Amino acid sequence: QPKLVGFLANDDPAAKKYAEWTAKTCAETGCGFELRKVDKQDLEEKITEANEDKAVNGIMVYYPVFGGKQDAYLQNCVSELKDVEGLCHKFVHNVYHNVRFMDEEETMKCIIPCTPLAIVKILEYIGVYNTVITYGNRLYGRTITVVNRSEIVGRPLAAMLANDGAKVFSVDVNGIQVFTRGDGIKLKAHKVEDIDTTLEQVVAQSDVVITGVPSPNYKLPTKLLRDGVVAINFSSSKNFEDDVKTKASIFVPSVGKVTVAMLERNLLRLTDYQNDIREKPAKSG
Amino acid sequence: QPKLVGFLANDDPAAKKYAEWTAKTCAETGCGFELRKVDKQDLEEKITEANEDKAVNGIMVYYPVFGGKQDAYLQNCVSELKDVEGLCHKFVHNVYHNVRFMDEEETMKCIIPCTPLAIVKILEYIGVYNTVITYGNRLYGRTITVVNRSEIVGRPLAAMLANDGAKVFSVDVNGIQVFTRGDGIKLKAHKVEDIDTTLEQVVAQSDVVITGVPSPNYKLPTKLLRDGVVAINFSSSKNFEDDVKTKASIFVPSVGKVTVAMLERNLLRLTDYQNDIREKPAKSG
Repeated sequence: QPKLVGFLANDDPAAKKYAEWTAKTCAETGCGFELRKVDKQDLEEKITEANEDKAVNGIMVYYPVFGGKQDAYLQNCVSELKDVEGLCHKFVHNVYHNVRFMDEEETMKCIIPCTPLAIVKILEYIGVYNTVITYGNRLYGRTITVVNRSEIVGRPLAAMLANDGAKVFSVDVNGIQVFTRGDGIKLKAHKVEDIDTTLEQVVAQSDVVITGVPSPNYKLPTKLLRDGVVAINFSSSKNFEDDVKTKASIFVPSVGKVTVAMLERNLLRLTDYQNDIREKPAKSG
Repeated sequence: QPKLVGFLANDDPAAKKYAEWTAKTCAETGCGFELRKVDKQDLEEKITEANEDKAVNGIMVYYPVFGGKQDAYLQNCVSELKDVEGLCHKFVHNVYHNVRFMDEEETMKCIIPCTPLAIVKILEYIGVYNTVITYGNRLYGRTITVVNRSEIVGRPLAAMLANDGAKVFSVDVNGIQVFTRGDGIKLKAHKVEDIDTTLEQVVAQSDVVITGVPSPNYKLPTKLLRDGVVAINFSSSKNFEDDVKTKASIFVPSVGKVTVAMLERNLLRLTDYQNDIREKPAKSG
């Protein structure tokens, strides 16, 4: 039985809810889950202990802990081989560069951050990915707006969608960027450009609008949406107005359950890698 | 001649000034320096090119570029062997854990972030480090306040001073923490505790007060300082009042020149490591 350890070092109600969902889903699906409540000052030490503990297969941390760059530091303290969230530098770097394997021999696929991965899986399921097109280019022709450019979800998500061929408008308070693989999707990985445009203009062009603003006060006006749009909200607040369904062909109000499923997928994958490495004969020298 | 490349992707006047000082100092001391002005969207690619270019021995980036966690991501894109600023995860992690070497064989000393290292060197020079005490414990008995807890300067500095034996109060807008190696400096590396106290109380106890608030409006009131205090400012703004010398036995208004010297020290060290690695026979297997 693979075992996941979640570290909770804050009082954020959204984190607690995520932890409860994780515990419930793991119980239903036969994964081990242990929630460890720790003081934030002890967290790094506890992560290091879990990195070295063979009984632990996956490690996740409920962020924010300190907030800002100190949390980015903590993300890199989790061992790559146990990083079920896919937030260490190597995995994030590989997402941006469209690198799919973590080893040179290409035996171990990279871990993708859970929430962006969940959104990709949802987009596949609801037919936004066109399976007639070659794998890797299946969003070619799609225009997608992502309202959130956090390092944990919005920016990797925009990069992943662009790497799969979409034109992606990435929106945050600092402005709007466009992520693409260039005209005719000729580039191997996406490029990013700052553009001088408005939310109204980019949403009006978008087949898919994805929101993740962590505030109950943020509402994307329904009147800006194209008729028949696919609307997805990954914020724990409701970022679309109540009448969003008058415009949306498909509306996905939350992605939490799929995110937990992706967490389990990553856990199973990493457990396999750990077992494979243990079974390999030690290298000489 | 070792060559340093500096990447400038912002319009920050403080960054430009730092780049000018670096160019001037490198010219005086016989180091090569090339400033490359790049668009922030191209920066990661340019860093990767410089990582792979044998003619480049050291890489630095003038932050902020995007700000926040995206800058933390960029810090980890610089190759360890060229990271003259000491900001990649491995070096920062080793600073916190009082690990002095970057390799298992202990042949290569770690790179320490330039500004914290400059402040330590200044404290050594002005006699705050007591050379009668064993190396590694030379701040035992000192109480130091650091007003700034950024991931680039304030937090690693507090950790380094505590690792060397001091009791360090780390102050920022979120509160005050104390960094120590415990009673009798029994711990191998520092621990951190949140404490419920005030700036007035910690400054009144401090032999040394170090400020780094990036705002011209922040002034630490002279009346809070102990008579005979050592006062050091590493902000590009003046964080002490004009009458600070009425209390301070030693006042260091800026650390920029020493920081550039430390940058060169790190460059020379990394150039040696690169040469050593090139001269080694390739490992079998």
